[in-house]
Amino acid sequence: MAITGRNDTTGRRLRLGMVGGGKDAFIGAVHRIASRIDGEYELVAGALSSTPERARESGTALGLAPERIYDDFKSMAIREARLKNGIEAVAIVTPNHMHYPAAREFLKRGIHVICDKPMTSTLSDARKLAKLADSSDALFVLTHNYTSYPMVRHARALVESGALGKIRLAQVEYVQDWLTEAEEQGDNKQAQWRTDPERSGAGGCVGDIGTHAFNLASFVSGLTVERLSADVTSFVAGRQVDDNTQVMLRFDGGAKGMLWASQVAPGNENTLRLRIYGEKGGLDWSQEDPNYLWFTPFGQEKRLITRGGAGSGEAAGRVSRVPPGHPEGYLEGFANIYTEAARAIRAHAAGEPVPQEVIFPTAQDGLLGVSFIDACVRSSARDSAWVKMG
Amino acid sequence: MAITGRNDTTGRRLRLGMVGGGKDAFIGAVHRIASRIDGEYELVAGALSSTPERARESGTALGLAPERIYDDFKSMAIREARLKNGIEAVAIVTPNHMHYPAAREFLKRGIHVICDKPMTSTLSDARKLAKLADSSDALFVLTHNYTSYPMVRHARALVESGALGKIRLAQVEYVQDWLTEAEEQGDNKQAQWRTDPERSGAGGCVGDIGTHAFNLASFVSGLTVERLSADVTSFVAGRQVDDNTQVMLRFDGGAKGMLWASQVAPGNENTLRLRIYGEKGGLDWSQEDPNYLWFTPFGQEKRLITRGGAGSGEAAGRVSRVPPGHPEGYLEGFANIYTEAARAIRAHAAGEPVPQEVIFPTAQDGLLGVSFIDACVRSSARDSAWVKMG
Amino acid sequence: MAITGRNDTTGRRLRLGMVGGGKDAFIGAVHRIASRIDGEYELVAGALSSTPERARESGTALGLAPERIYDDFKSMAIREARLKNGIEAVAIVTPNHMHYPAAREFLKRGIHVICDKPMTSTLSDARKLAKLADSSDALFVLTHNYTSYPMVRHARALVESGALGKIRLAQVEYVQDWLTEAEEQGDNKQAQWRTDPERSGAGGCVGDIGTHAFNLASFVSGLTVERLSADVTSFVAGRQVDDNTQVMLRFDGGAKGMLWASQVAPGNENTLRLRIYGEKGGLDWSQEDPNYLWFTPFGQEKRLITRGGAGSGEAAGRVSRVPPGHPEGYLEGFANIYTEAARAIRAHAAGEPVPQEVIFPTAQDGLLGVSFIDACVRSSARDSAWVKMG
Amino acid sequence: MAITGRNDTTGRRLRLGMVGGGKDAFIGAVHRIASRIDGEYELVAGALSSTPERARESGTALGLAPERIYDDFKSMAIREARLKNGIEAVAIVTPNHMHYPAAREFLKRGIHVICDKPMTSTLSDARKLAKLADSSDALFVLTHNYTSYPMVRHARALVESGALGKIRLAQVEYVQDWLTEAEEQGDNKQAQWRTDPERSGAGGCVGDIGTHAFNLASFVSGLTVERLSADVTSFVAGRQVDDNTQVMLRFDGGAKGMLWASQVAPGNENTLRLRIYGEKGGLDWSQEDPNYLWFTPFGQEKRLITRGGAGSGEAAGRVSRVPPGHPEGYLEGFANIYTEAARAIRAHAAGEPVPQEVIFPTAQDGLLGVSFIDACVRSSARDSAWVKMG
Repeated sequence: MAITGRNDTTGRRLRLGMVGGGKDAFIGAVHRIASRIDGEYELVAGALSSTPERARESGTALGLAPERIYDDFKSMAIREARLKNGIEAVAIVTPNHMHYPAAREFLKRGIHVICDKPMTSTLSDARKLAKLADSSDALFVLTHNYTSYPMVRHARALVESGALGKIRLAQVEYVQDWLTEAEEQGDNKQAQWRTDPERSGAGGCVGDIGTHAFNLASFVSGLTVERLSADVTSFVAGRQVDDNTQVMLRFDGGAKGMLWASQVAPGNENTLRLRIYGEKGGLDWSQEDPNYLWFTPFGQEKRLITRGGAGSGEAAGRVSRVPPGHPEGYLEGFANIYTEAARAIRAHAAGEPVPQEVIFPTAQDGLLGVSFIDACVRSSARDSAWVKMG
Repeated sequence: MAITGRNDTTGRRLRLGMVGGGKDAFIGAVHRIASRIDGEYELVAGALSSTPERARESGTALGLAPERIYDDFKSMAIREARLKNGIEAVAIVTPNHMHYPAAREFLKRGIHVICDKPMTSTLSDARKLAKLADSSDALFVLTHNYTSYPMVRHARALVESGALGKIRLAQVEYVQDWLTEAEEQGDNKQAQWRTDPERSGAGGCVGDIGTHAFNLASFVSGLTVERLSADVTSFVAGRQVDDNTQVMLRFDGGAKGMLWASQVAPGNENTLRLRIYGEKGGLDWSQEDPNYLWFTPFGQEKRLITRGGAGSGEAAGRVSRVPPGHPEGYLEGFANIYTEAARAIRAHAAGEPVPQEVIFPTAQDGLLGVSFIDACVRSSARDSAWVKMG
Repeated sequence: MAITGRNDTTGRRLRLGMVGGGKDAFIGAVHRIASRIDGEYELVAGALSSTPERARESGTALGLAPERIYDDFKSMAIREARLKNGIEAVAIVTPNHMHYPAAREFLKRGIHVICDKPMTSTLSDARKLAKLADSSDALFVLTHNYTSYPMVRHARALVESGALGKIRLAQVEYVQDWLTEAEEQGDNKQAQWRTDPERSGAGGCVGDIGTHAFNLASFVSGLTVERLSADVTSFVAGRQVDDNTQVMLRFDGGAKGMLWASQVAPGNENTLRLRIYGEKGGLDWSQEDPNYLWFTPFGQEKRLITRGGAGSGEAAGRVSRVPPGHPEGYLEGFANIYTEAARAIRAHAAGEPVPQEVIFPTAQDGLLGVSFIDACVRSSARDSAWVKMG
Repeated sequence: MAITGRNDTTGRRLRLGMVGGGKDAFIGAVHRIASRIDGEYELVAGALSSTPERARESGTALGLAPERIYDDFKSMAIREARLKNGIEAVAIVTPNHMHYPAAREFLKRGIHVICDKPMTSTLSDARKLAKLADSSDALFVLTHNYTSYPMVRHARALVESGALGKIRLAQVEYVQDWLTEAEEQGDNKQAQWRTDPERSGAGGCVGDIGTHAFNLASFVSGLTVERLSADVTSFVAGRQVDDNTQVMLRFDGGAKGMLWASQVAPGNENTLRLRIYGEKGGLDWSQEDPNYLWFTPFGQEKRLITRGGAGSGEAAGRVSRVPPGHPEGYLEGFANIYTEAARAIRAHAAGEPVPQEVIFPTAQDGLLGVSFIDACVRSSARDSAWVKMG
């Protein structure tokens, strides 16, 4: 029962700032916990709300020094870039439409960006940001956190190893129920911005969670979606964006798939499930039970591989902290993104290339995700015609 | 822990014949066991193979009287119709293309037909058979056996009761792995006829199991598919029919759905799963764990309803035999079709209408199933265009 | 997807009688269905109740010929033994205290006995019956039905094969909730006799279900309990027998175990679970999900073996009827006892030995079961002292 | 989908030291992560190994200031107590036999102690430590971390609320497989000290994990074990302590229970499961799936309560961080102990009483745990006689 995984023998913590994530936010707190778990970061600055007063309150509550609580991200980027001990990285956890404007200010000043998904609210912004990230010396890390669960890493490694043979099918679904009723018409701020196309983008459910499913299927299968046919629906009266999206997928090389994203399916809290089938075997993984991976080599018994247990290799082990049977969860998966980013940032600071085993979603993944949203909306508008991605 | 369900105090057994189901057949033995479980039938005649010698061998092995072992179904229909104690019902368990010719001979002689699915191998045959069944005095029962699992009956009752509110979504999948490789190129007779369009029809996987999924979703939701968009695929080299089918569904009243049928998904033996979501709640049922039904009223805890347990009502109880915790399975579900048919046949013999609570799939359901296959193939040929059913 | 298992090509059915099992009985109907499933028996005679009027009503309802409906088992035994086509076997499904008197009448007249468990209500009766069965030419079959589930057979085969190494631990539990309240004080006849020491014996819960657990653990592990320490409890006020029993077990060869039987554990319908651990591996099987067996060779991934699937061998296959993924249940497991008995009876009739692969619980198993009840009660009376079995 | 639970708006971090937990340790890293998750502590000093060189190496690797890396805990206690900004709390994560000597040095200097379990290696030490903790102004917190899982808190709240009625049964098991072979004869340091009675105490498995099970059952049921009967076994040749322990329990008020702890059960990684049954309902919780709690009110459907979901109340909510469906795991449960301790420490520093809702295991719980080990060993030595606790 050796400790697999994360070495917590850290030295100096990286200085982290945050844009968004003040009171009433959900994902900001997640990013903060994730940044702390492996002891790689210290939050030292923030522009935590678009409302200055709330930004100040939130910063104070988080124990930030008063001079590093900012009213807006631009002044934060400018000042922190000049400080001797200014932030080395910034977490952007605003509603989607602000990702690009905020990321731009930091990237162009050489501050690494850890940004929530989807990358932007428009395809145009996504293209600009991808281009900027490409040309910037600073790193851009997108928090498609589900790709950092250890057993997802192992699933990908199994596919890469050829254990499944040529991949034929990728079936993925991400299902919730919290928008079954018109939650946004009450005072739920999370529901409000996520169903507001101005802030969220053209995709509602497909953008919020469909992109996670899309990214996960691509990450594990190693395949690229070439065309898709989508049916984008809004079931709840008055809702401005989709709350249920069905997609048929065609990958390069002939593999096919289906993707279902819904936020109106009662009994589902956060059901993200991926199944991959090849000529020689199949995989099945569920986010709500993340420490397990079903693997069936065709013609053999089903095997339940556990995080850190027999058959769970190095790809999982290096993003694990505790032995098998001691469940790691959502926050540890999220922390893995932060720690991978820290490794990349430290390598960058040392003038070294990012180590090969370090994996995190990039701006190119983000562009693909926004292209996916766009393609779903386009296909659905054309009566579910097959449309090309990108 | 009272015995819910089936009363086994039967009197005289109904005289049953069988067409097909000889040596090397799978489903014939299932029908025979199903016919025996509740003691409602006695198998007394058979034309058990299209090969006379095999028909004779199989009949002898089953203990049929020599004079009631037939070389072909037509002579069986003719002679049994004339016998004083001839068969009252016949089970047709041949490959699909023989369903119609066989059923016709019996129906037109007033012998009740219990027929395997899909109803026919062509839409044209299906239409003729549906018309014939409509006009015949004899009953036609299609063995979409999955609709007779007690918890499927309860699921339907819950939907009917309004417990889920207006239905928005029906997600259904039927997944196997036994055709992952080119099984039909060996000596597997089951694989051979099921992948031979002459005997199976235009649909392979979509006909063999997709129709079950389609029928189940319709049965429980109470909804009618109006249009569908399908992607029909054959992954295995040399295979003449599809082995994987993806479908997007649009129901009357605005509900939507997805259907996935596959026989090339390693790790899946017979994974038939149905999920139904409405404005007020959700249901989840899986064939491989058939004694359970998940039911979540929106905003409440998930409830695991067990066959015969609390919350499992009369619709399930009348097709159950043993108390909760004593699992009933596939054969009992199949037997329920036979017993429902027996009730209808006995009512018919007594000149009474079929009791209202008796439920079985009819020729109209069979026609819908074959229409579904046809629509999937048509849509796929038109690049997954939305096509109308029927 | 070949049909593993049961050959349904039966010839002549064995003539079966039944003692007990009339109206309001539970297990009688189970025996009748079990006897029908594989087509090996025809019920032709019965003394179905200790009340003549009820016996007659029940027999009529079951369609027995009037002259073969008996008022009592003794006259049935006498007359059937004399008939040219008298019964060849009798099912005894009365309350426990009548098992011995009834079995005696049939055994001594050469009629095979299929008897429900526990074998008798007293240890003295059990010894007499075991002796009688030993000396009788007729067969005695005890319906410890759980040993006939295919995956239980496979579990036993795995242990026998040495796949688990030397066995260290057998943990077994059989848990229900139907006696959580004083059900016997209402009109539940099942609860009444099962909690009446005159009819049930000294053990309540430990006799009714504890013996199943004990038998199952012995059957799969291949080990013999040498000593046990028990704590026998009656939680419900006014209850005359135990409704919860805890036992620590010591097997020959040094293995240990725990057994828990309860009928007062809300949320448990019929939770019979067995876990066996050896030096090289572990097994886990649950009756409510009977088509699966977990097997973990130490140091390897957990494997989920499915009935009829990869890794499920001949011992399971010969008591299976349908392919993997088509769940078999309680009634099929019970039917396996009947069909094994039929094989033995047919061999007996042909003057041949019972085939080696045919397995059924015998009077010796029954004696062990009643000894187990007795030992639990004795130990508990001596403040849970370790007592010897037998 | 509001964020239930932990407010991460921390101010100043508490200064934490650590004794033990250097290289090759398992639980030290767990404590460090747990202390970081909610941002309540900063590790600033350590005596991380009994070997000075290793202590120094480990401290450096963790980024401690050189002057706060100590060769032994005593000099650390003395110096830190004198420092102006010395540690406010110390985590003791050594092998068991050092818990008492280390805790004593800190407690008597007013430094709060967070100590791993079991509290001590001898009953004598446990009594002394409990007495010392009682009389000390400093707090003593024992890391029975499993009691801090949100759904365990909810389970306890349900019992307290009377939802289960009077408790009759507590069944608990903690099962692993990592000591199936003689791991301690290799170079596994974890196995070595845990099977060495000098360092571990008289209990091996029963001390290491049995105490967790005992503590959990007591915590949730609210009951006190009065007497127990145990069978303590060592299966692996040459092993000096037990690797499997079976216990029957009698609680105050008449409830009964069984406890099984094993480290030789292949296929079990860290299977801690608790079931509680009362006159009105039952509970079932498993550590490897910790975000779920099964609750069955007698006579109603089984309900699956999810962390943060419907029916999961304030007791769970205040120790949760993310919405339902986003699994929290072992580290979050462990962090809850640290955060509860932080609340107590901050209240203490403010001269206020520990808030009523703050829950953590105390030295009294620790004494009970060591008494449990002692009672198991005593009972087993007396042929499993019932012995009194304490």
